[in-house]
Amino acid sequence: MSPDIYLDNNATTPLHEDVYRKMRYSLKYQYGNPSSNYEIGINAKKSIQYARNNLAEFLNAEPEQITFTSGATESNSTAIIGYCLKNKSKNHIITSSIEHPAIMEACKYLQVSHGFDVSYLPVNKDGIVQINHLASLITPKTSLVTVMMVNNEIGSIQPIKKIGALCKALDIYFHCDAVQGAGKLPIDVKELNVNSLSLSAHKIYGPKGVGCLYIEDKNQLYPLLHGGAQEMGFRSGTENVTGIIGFGQAVECLMDHWINDIQHITFLRNKFIGQLNQHLTDWSINGGNTVPSTLSLCIHGIRGEALAYALSQMGVFVSIASACSSSSSKLSHVLKALGKSQEEIRSTIRVSFGRQNTIQEIEKAINILVTTTSKLRSFSPMMVNV
Amino acid sequence: MSPDIYLDNNATTPLHEDVYRKMRYSLKYQYGNPSSNYEIGINAKKSIQYARNNLAEFLNAEPEQITFTSGATESNSTAIIGYCLKNKSKNHIITSSIEHPAIMEACKYLQVSHGFDVSYLPVNKDGIVQINHLASLITPKTSLVTVMMVNNEIGSIQPIKKIGALCKALDIYFHCDAVQGAGKLPIDVKELNVNSLSLSAHKIYGPKGVGCLYIEDKNQLYPLLHGGAQEMGFRSGTENVTGIIGFGQAVECLMDHWINDIQHITFLRNKFIGQLNQHLTDWSINGGNTVPSTLSLCIHGIRGEALAYALSQMGVFVSIASACSSSSSKLSHVLKALGKSQEEIRSTIRVSFGRQNTIQEIEKAINILVTTTSKLRSFSPMMVNV
Ligand SMILES: Cc1ncc(COP(=O)(O)O)c(C=O)c1O
Ligand SMILES: Cc1ncc(COP(=O)(O)O)c(C=O)c1O
Repeated sequence: MSPDIYLDNNATTPLHEDVYRKMRYSLKYQYGNPSSNYEIGINAKKSIQYARNNLAEFLNAEPEQITFTSGATESNSTAIIGYCLKNKSKNHIITSSIEHPAIMEACKYLQVSHGFDVSYLPVNKDGIVQINHLASLITPKTSLVTVMMVNNEIGSIQPIKKIGALCKALDIYFHCDAVQGAGKLPIDVKELNVNSLSLSAHKIYGPKGVGCLYIEDKNQLYPLLHGGAQEMGFRSGTENVTGIIGFGQAVECLMDHWINDIQHITFLRNKFIGQLNQHLTDWSINGGNTVPSTLSLCIHGIRGEALAYALSQMGVFVSIASACSSSSSKLSHVLKALGKSQEEIRSTIRVSFGRQNTIQEIEKAINILVTTTSKLRSFSPMMVNV
Repeated sequence: MSPDIYLDNNATTPLHEDVYRKMRYSLKYQYGNPSSNYEIGINAKKSIQYARNNLAEFLNAEPEQITFTSGATESNSTAIIGYCLKNKSKNHIITSSIEHPAIMEACKYLQVSHGFDVSYLPVNKDGIVQINHLASLITPKTSLVTVMMVNNEIGSIQPIKKIGALCKALDIYFHCDAVQGAGKLPIDVKELNVNSLSLSAHKIYGPKGVGCLYIEDKNQLYPLLHGGAQEMGFRSGTENVTGIIGFGQAVECLMDHWINDIQHITFLRNKFIGQLNQHLTDWSINGGNTVPSTLSLCIHGIRGEALAYALSQMGVFVSIASACSSSSSKLSHVLKALGKSQEEIRSTIRVSFGRQNTIQEIEKAINILVTTTSKLRSFSPMMVNV
């Protein structure tokens, strides 16, 4: 019997019960087009406005500064490509060496197809960029800096406030991918001095296919999608009304209980690590100064892929790195940037906790992890300690 | 008591009951990330593949040629911007003068921000482009032609097959916005010779915030969204799994019963027009050779805005033009292109029928329309026949 213990909450999260209820209702009854001037249209528009107000409150922004998108990938492409193409007199971008592909690939597009230069900030062994390093990379041609708030593979927290202050002082545009920060750290766009910031609903118990982009001043960017001038003219396309309603509700839930969630998750994490300490040898944690929900584990002497697969057969779901790169056979660029060896990278699994996980699940998962690891190690004893 | 008769099905449609059921289930239980390699992830991926196969069958395309997007606006921006920026040696675009803003504005972006020239094909008094006109506009610099399948405001059907043949003969890229054609006309991408074609789920009893782009050969275009290489590498971003499932189901339903729907809608339309003939004077239909579901009515002597508002107060929902332009005070560019006078444009409402409408609704709506028109005309008798 498979217990189905979902420990891959960085990849995506199940819907919060309140989100599900609101979306189910909306799907059935709120079918009006928000651009229509009669009751069901006006109601759809009001629902979007309600969600926008939630997001604005959550980020300490103005509602007009929130644009709903189809997810953080669109938000990131909009900010990076939209700003850089509108401000082509400078053509140098700085990003970190541990960004999500949704940042990396947008930068690469500008490099390959529009002649931009891209510099990659290194990280220390904890997986954190250094502000002095950033300063040293800045040139008069630097147009944009983009650094994520929390890394998706190892959970390391980046010094966003310091980067924001530096960029502001030098009048350089600063974009932050805060997808993995939401619900884990307080986010105040004013305090952080970001020019734009991305969020995704499906990482915070909301639906897939909806996200948002906070933009301080939309005049600085080209839009990415062109058409009927929805989203106050900046992001065209009939709104994903039900998705946006779900996102707004997810954020409302977060505001109510994220502190409790963090306490609960910290408790689960401590339990998990305590049990590992007791029952497993030869393992270590990748990265430091991390959010409690992310645990990147190097379990020496086994292949992460084999372990993750064996665990999934026992109903415990974890990933080897980010969901995005699972299907590719490339080694994690994040762990490489931390200076990990090929063997260490190959021996890594990512465990990420969510608010719905219970202490019973953790206990079961640890049991399964420990026995599965022993079995795998016994099959290939020579690999231990390589 | 408001009867709530929804006659604005070109703006958006309510969910088909089967679509609702599938989406409700998916929201709750299918929360896996399609990129994850364990059961709930693999199931999500399979669901997407299932939907993709439906779309491919619907369009007579290969599944690999279908890319899911956040809607037709994204599909159109991807095709037009993605092709033109990748093929900059030619810099001339031809489109029609009656396109949806999702085409118009993508062309305008290329014009204003990337130096492209844009030509606008005129239409005849029925609202149809002429193939000879198109030929005369083509120059050696013509990179792309984009013409919609069916107009959203008046319903006129464009000669897509002829345009496709001409473009193919001249080796010019041809994109077609088929949003208003789906479920109303058969669509066979091979027969039409389109290089790309856009659809939107919410116009065919599916959810808002999801669409697709058929692309014959993806190597010809830049992607618009960059990141984790979902959608076979062409459209990054965690997939809107539930939305895509809904879209796939909507198309499955269409394939089952669109012919019946058209018959039903034709019957409703004939009834509607018959009743108007009997009970209303001084009105006319804008456009010709239209799909039966769209009825653009010029009711002389009144303001379309006032009529649509008064009808909505009586529970009958129609629009004055497209949903997209309702909120702007500009006159319809489509009706202008047909050569309509300012007065005619101002006196126009759009009635659009859907499969869920009943003959009883049509009878009630006609009663309300006739009495409301009389009232409005009696308030401003001087306007009659202007
Ligand atoms: C002809 C046409 N093209 C494009 C669109 C835009 O589609 P979406 O709302 O999915 O972005 C619409 C409807 O809004 C339309 O009628
Ligand atoms: C840090 C980070 N940025 C961006 C994304 C992409 O977000 P979305 O899936 O909403 O496109 C993800 C997750 O996939 C992520 O973890």
